[in-house]
Amino acid sequence: MDKLKIVVIGGGSSYTPEIIEGFLKRKDELPVREIVLVDIEAGQEKLNIVGSLAKRMVKKAGLDINIELTLDRKAALKDADFVVTQFRVGGLAARAKDERFPLKYNVIGQETTGPGGFAKALRTIPVILDICKDIEEICPKAFLINFTNPSGMVTEAVNKYTNVKCIGLCNVPIHMRMNFAEILDVSFDDLYVEYAGLNHLVWVKKVWLKGEDITMKMIDMLTDGVSLSMRNIPDIKWNRDYLRALKLIPSPYHRYYLMTDKLLEEELNAAAEGGAGTRAEVVKAVEDRLFELYKDEELKEKPKELEKRGGAYYSDAAVSLISAIYNDKKEVHVVNVVNHGTISGLPKDCVIETNCLIDRRGATPIVLKEELPLEALGVVQAVKSYEVPAIEAAVNGDKGKALIAMANHPLVPSVEVAEKLVEDLLEINKEYLPQFKF
Amino acid sequence: MDKLKIVVIGGGSSYTPEIIEGFLKRKDELPVREIVLVDIEAGQEKLNIVGSLAKRMVKKAGLDINIELTLDRKAALKDADFVVTQFRVGGLAARAKDERFPLKYNVIGQETTGPGGFAKALRTIPVILDICKDIEEICPKAFLINFTNPSGMVTEAVNKYTNVKCIGLCNVPIHMRMNFAEILDVSFDDLYVEYAGLNHLVWVKKVWLKGEDITMKMIDMLTDGVSLSMRNIPDIKWNRDYLRALKLIPSPYHRYYLMTDKLLEEELNAAAEGGAGTRAEVVKAVEDRLFELYKDEELKEKPKELEKRGGAYYSDAAVSLISAIYNDKKEVHVVNVVNHGTISGLPKDCVIETNCLIDRRGATPIVLKEELPLEALGVVQAVKSYEVPAIEAAVNGDKGKALIAMANHPLVPSVEVAEKLVEDLLEINKEYLPQFKF
Amino acid sequence: MDKLKIVVIGGGSSYTPEIIEGFLKRKDELPVREIVLVDIEAGQEKLNIVGSLAKRMVKKAGLDINIELTLDRKAALKDADFVVTQFRVGGLAARAKDERFPLKYNVIGQETTGPGGFAKALRTIPVILDICKDIEEICPKAFLINFTNPSGMVTEAVNKYTNVKCIGLCNVPIHMRMNFAEILDVSFDDLYVEYAGLNHLVWVKKVWLKGEDITMKMIDMLTDGVSLSMRNIPDIKWNRDYLRALKLIPSPYHRYYLMTDKLLEEELNAAAEGGAGTRAEVVKAVEDRLFELYKDEELKEKPKELEKRGGAYYSDAAVSLISAIYNDKKEVHVVNVVNHGTISGLPKDCVIETNCLIDRRGATPIVLKEELPLEALGVVQAVKSYEVPAIEAAVNGDKGKALIAMANHPLVPSVEVAEKLVEDLLEINKEYLPQFKF
Amino acid sequence: MDKLKIVVIGGGSSYTPEIIEGFLKRKDELPVREIVLVDIEAGQEKLNIVGSLAKRMVKKAGLDINIELTLDRKAALKDADFVVTQFRVGGLAARAKDERFPLKYNVIGQETTGPGGFAKALRTIPVILDICKDIEEICPKAFLINFTNPSGMVTEAVNKYTNVKCIGLCNVPIHMRMNFAEILDVSFDDLYVEYAGLNHLVWVKKVWLKGEDITMKMIDMLTDGVSLSMRNIPDIKWNRDYLRALKLIPSPYHRYYLMTDKLLEEELNAAAEGGAGTRAEVVKAVEDRLFELYKDEELKEKPKELEKRGGAYYSDAAVSLISAIYNDKKEVHVVNVVNHGTISGLPKDCVIETNCLIDRRGATPIVLKEELPLEALGVVQAVKSYEVPAIEAAVNGDKGKALIAMANHPLVPSVEVAEKLVEDLLEINKEYLPQFKF
Repeated sequence: MDKLKIVVIGGGSSYTPEIIEGFLKRKDELPVREIVLVDIEAGQEKLNIVGSLAKRMVKKAGLDINIELTLDRKAALKDADFVVTQFRVGGLAARAKDERFPLKYNVIGQETTGPGGFAKALRTIPVILDICKDIEEICPKAFLINFTNPSGMVTEAVNKYTNVKCIGLCNVPIHMRMNFAEILDVSFDDLYVEYAGLNHLVWVKKVWLKGEDITMKMIDMLTDGVSLSMRNIPDIKWNRDYLRALKLIPSPYHRYYLMTDKLLEEELNAAAEGGAGTRAEVVKAVEDRLFELYKDEELKEKPKELEKRGGAYYSDAAVSLISAIYNDKKEVHVVNVVNHGTISGLPKDCVIETNCLIDRRGATPIVLKEELPLEALGVVQAVKSYEVPAIEAAVNGDKGKALIAMANHPLVPSVEVAEKLVEDLLEINKEYLPQFKF
Repeated sequence: MDKLKIVVIGGGSSYTPEIIEGFLKRKDELPVREIVLVDIEAGQEKLNIVGSLAKRMVKKAGLDINIELTLDRKAALKDADFVVTQFRVGGLAARAKDERFPLKYNVIGQETTGPGGFAKALRTIPVILDICKDIEEICPKAFLINFTNPSGMVTEAVNKYTNVKCIGLCNVPIHMRMNFAEILDVSFDDLYVEYAGLNHLVWVKKVWLKGEDITMKMIDMLTDGVSLSMRNIPDIKWNRDYLRALKLIPSPYHRYYLMTDKLLEEELNAAAEGGAGTRAEVVKAVEDRLFELYKDEELKEKPKELEKRGGAYYSDAAVSLISAIYNDKKEVHVVNVVNHGTISGLPKDCVIETNCLIDRRGATPIVLKEELPLEALGVVQAVKSYEVPAIEAAVNGDKGKALIAMANHPLVPSVEVAEKLVEDLLEINKEYLPQFKF
Repeated sequence: MDKLKIVVIGGGSSYTPEIIEGFLKRKDELPVREIVLVDIEAGQEKLNIVGSLAKRMVKKAGLDINIELTLDRKAALKDADFVVTQFRVGGLAARAKDERFPLKYNVIGQETTGPGGFAKALRTIPVILDICKDIEEICPKAFLINFTNPSGMVTEAVNKYTNVKCIGLCNVPIHMRMNFAEILDVSFDDLYVEYAGLNHLVWVKKVWLKGEDITMKMIDMLTDGVSLSMRNIPDIKWNRDYLRALKLIPSPYHRYYLMTDKLLEEELNAAAEGGAGTRAEVVKAVEDRLFELYKDEELKEKPKELEKRGGAYYSDAAVSLISAIYNDKKEVHVVNVVNHGTISGLPKDCVIETNCLIDRRGATPIVLKEELPLEALGVVQAVKSYEVPAIEAAVNGDKGKALIAMANHPLVPSVEVAEKLVEDLLEINKEYLPQFKF
Repeated sequence: MDKLKIVVIGGGSSYTPEIIEGFLKRKDELPVREIVLVDIEAGQEKLNIVGSLAKRMVKKAGLDINIELTLDRKAALKDADFVVTQFRVGGLAARAKDERFPLKYNVIGQETTGPGGFAKALRTIPVILDICKDIEEICPKAFLINFTNPSGMVTEAVNKYTNVKCIGLCNVPIHMRMNFAEILDVSFDDLYVEYAGLNHLVWVKKVWLKGEDITMKMIDMLTDGVSLSMRNIPDIKWNRDYLRALKLIPSPYHRYYLMTDKLLEEELNAAAEGGAGTRAEVVKAVEDRLFELYKDEELKEKPKELEKRGGAYYSDAAVSLISAIYNDKKEVHVVNVVNHGTISGLPKDCVIETNCLIDRRGATPIVLKEELPLEALGVVQAVKSYEVPAIEAAVNGDKGKALIAMANHPLVPSVEVAEKLVEDLLEINKEYLPQFKF
């Protein structure tokens, strides 16, 4: 490969400085000639702010990388080597609605895991498939690195409906490993963590420290008061007896399934008048502050404040993944890929999140020598029985499939409530759901 | 085989007249020499009442069948050809507790499907394994026809931990088919119904009328106001759009999963002061009346009133199954058997409920030409991820497994609630759970 | 269903009197209004002879069945309920060539199992797919009962490439069970025999006599001098130690794989100058005699001599199968059907031979409670790795697939020989293989 | 880990200088404190010769590695970190017999793949299990790197019957990749080759050059006159049409299956009076010359001549594997490991040869994104149906299993010949087969 052309769709996002920093940090191993930040008209202003910061960052680093800003996606894709998708259809405003509408029925309104995430999937999947149609036509050899949420479902849609080489990213696995390293006070590199499950529903099967299995010790430490903290999720202690019996470590997002009652209460409180607001509303404030900072012509690097944003490390993980592919590193990353029998109780063609070998050919899952035990698999299978019809609904605008998906979601208490949620969801998101007939 | 010896464990049950009637009805195809009704000391009085009625029934039929009443199980098993288990550890009193204790946490207290059924499984499985130890020793060639609930889990325990040839029975499949025949106004025999799932969580995949697939028509009729009615479950209408999209028919017990909110409300109302009482309490009253009837020396046949009892057709199904085995009929019955790959998303060694070929060799599942779709499989897998650790907990008295099982149950909202439910369950059932250390 | 219309393709075959007799025997359960015997122009004379005999048979039986003779297949298929295929592309002359050409390379030239059978498959599959196109168009609800060889491969082709409801028949399973009954001196009906494998490569997993497993006893008797005799296969004794260790009973056709050296020698001897001739040549003589008999105006029933023909019971099995379907009997027959996971080491969409439940819906395999052991599965998998590309070659005229198929056949010693065999095969059968480009 | 202790069982082998060189070459990454060469009494003389050379090599390299020679295996295993097995039960004399006895029946007498290899397996497996019993007791954390042949079967036996962490090695995959690199004139490191199959029956699924799939180009070059050459196997050209249709590259050992007739002829010629002798006899001469060289006190490094020996690169691969484990490299090596569903048509608990991630935890297979196609799988399955009963026969001395294994071997033409081969094998190897009763 020659020097690389990178296309970032949703380039006006507040995350962009992190991705730029990621490339700057790896300048010796990853020769980039051009980074094109693509956005839509509504995002023009943010694109300008972030784009200018990006240019200042590159200049300060003394590198010869061309930063291009554009609203013309097709033109941008020409000769692209890697396409990164980090857009949000409807912006934070849509997310805020996702988080609120299910609360009316006492259902968790989480933006990736619950009915909120379903709304996001319905808005996002048609757009990503559209992008993929362009990639197939304009730059078919490019890799698509997706971190638009719900990342697993989006990746599954791409893998089922297009020929684009797509790898789905999430920052949860890397966060968990960082957290383990911190708790153990060891180096991140000395840990090997085996993950299996779905995006935002991934289990840690084993933790090894320098080749020694310390899973049970890790469980003891995790239930000892310390905990896995993700900015997007309220901090709640795991039940020690449960984890000890299970011998597995849940992801922070498992809390929505394992502590449903508590998390619903928290969400209701936050959303209530006088409450802290939904997560989207909190993020909105953080983001506004970030853009204020970005405008500062003197700012020439990624500001520390960005790390407080929930998606921290996402972009860096993306660049690290790009480098592993470009350099044929045969590194192990935890990403979203087609199952191919890795988790034997799930369909072969669905997308899972697990440890993969990364090289020039892309991501290939590593065999699980011990299968994910049935005790941990049940909830994963139940959620997959929501995801599959949800993706079909997103692609075909099929209301029947949407109803099945919603009713199958473990957080939804009945078909009756599912029906109301689907109605509300379609009504609220009407402008973003042309695939459905109204 | 010579003339048969049948052993009924839990012989003092109010169901016994039906099973006796079943044998009398089939006198020409099923030559029985002896029926031994076995019970425990606490059931002596009921055993006498029911046993006397049984004798009068046989006498009236003019048959030469010896009815034996005993508390000595081992003696009873000598030379047995078929053993039928229909006992209830702790009686209806325990069931009433099963149905009430979860309500405290706003969790459904259903006696077979929810945490209530878990309590029943923990009480029952050690007893059935004990019976099986006797069968292995005394009459290893005998078939065990189990209709003690939770029938699927009990059958799974027997199949995993013993060498006894055990078939699990449930009256739900036969009720559904009867209900379809009634709605369609056709003969029961003209229908072929394909079932797949778990006991009390079985899906109808297809309905054929004289070889024609009428599944969609059946769905339309079922959601047209008419419905599948089972005496144990409140009558609630299915959502037509949902079933039409799914193209499958749920069992009545699916309501606990698909209408959780409504059924919880009903249970809370029934259990509240001034309410109708839990189902156990209602059944208790029915049963008391039945025993009053049974005492009547003039009664010489199964009273009509027995059909109002939830378990109607259970016993008749058992005798019909015995006849199919004895006569090597190669009939299709819907029973609980080891999966052996029939439902590919479930463990091979677990027990499922599906159409089986019945002959002298026992029950063999028939291949599903179309797999149970993922959309219907998710909840089945989730429930199996409860059942498997629940059985382990029952066998080994393992509190960790009990906690996992309870937390995995789709009707339980959190690990925290699961922990409280397990604590209460163990405390309430202490006298019946010697396998747990307190 | 009303009274039935049956269409027999290859109606001029010497087997036809047996199929007619089959319908006459079952007149009380199987109401037939018309049997159309279809043949091609080259078969006109035989069709007339056999058709006249059929008419005399019906007349003698005093039944009101219309026997129609025609060369117009499309007209014949109108309103057909069952289509039976028993044709032979190229006739016995082609079979004789099939049996001879591989001998040149010291390879067995068997007409169904070896390279000879491959030639037959290449000639037959395009014709059967053509017939199926007509059925799909003219009588899509009709069942196709195929007993044209290689029956398993032909059935697989139909199932993979058409929507016709096709069941493949073979007389080997019924012959084996008859032979067992004879050896044991018990009634055919008292035996239950479980089969699993491929057509002409089926294993008996278990033999039950009145519900008792007598497999090992059967093995002892079979290796005691007595043996399974099929008219098409030389009579050779099985190795007792081998079968005892394996605990399974091979089909007579397994000899080609398990006694390759001996059978090759026999074939070479028979084909040599002064030898008995190949099986086709022997059959030709039998057939000529049969047609002489059939011409006799006084003959009004199936002549005894027909039973000496290798395919005895084939036609009767076909009528018995038709009756099981028509009468929704839920009987167990051993037929060729889509695997659907029944044998877990074979593709789900391939065709296998196994015990099936037969009813109005067709044939559904019965689950194997114990899997076919690896020790017996290897050869089955090896042969399936020949069959799959062979079918693709037949459909697409793909020489590469033909070479792979031939090289994968366990009876072929090298790719080099495979290449020569393919060349010879294509050359010899040129006129029947329009799908290949020459 | 501290500095390592390595134990080489069969330390007196002519390969030992290569393994020593392997450690010397990697001195910077692999700190070794002691290498113990273990042998049996009969090997004392060779052990002394090779051991002295090893000491001279270490000395010349100026390293502080203690070379220990011993006949006391248990003592040697104390504190071992890695155990390497490279012994040959019965020595080359036994191998020569392995290669000759089947020829009497016109069956290939190959020492790893055919009946000869079966004899070797029967002699070797009990010894390796004995070694493993010692490892379990004395150094349970040690890794066992096995390159005693038949390496796959030996590794399967260890994995099925012991708890030892065992990885099986073969030099075929590395040879093939070297050969590809040579033919393409590219660097070994620029190629990624995906393998799947069994030891000595491994298929190359794909060849990538710097991330580009060049499999078809490689096939064209391979069938262009050039070829994969392994010293142990006669050089014969592949059939281009066959490989092009198959789209896979066979291992050199596939020739025994794909060119059976030719290779049998070659073996017969070589073994005939006046012939070149069997491979063992040729190797014996090479080995004698090597030991003459080794005796030379001036020799202080691995002599070039060793590379002519068939097993070249075996030992270097072993040290490279040890380094990948010790240094937690997460490198991809092609080794023999438990299947765990990697090849879905083979048992989960059998051993396969495929690309694995190597790190401190051992070897973990990488998922095959495209399954090994049925067309290539059939022969693999057939051979596995030989291997599994062969291992059981080796462990239990079960003659019935031995007969099944031999009869299932694709190179054996009949049960009858199989029986004779087993008889001869047992008779010839009597002194090495105490597990069988004579």
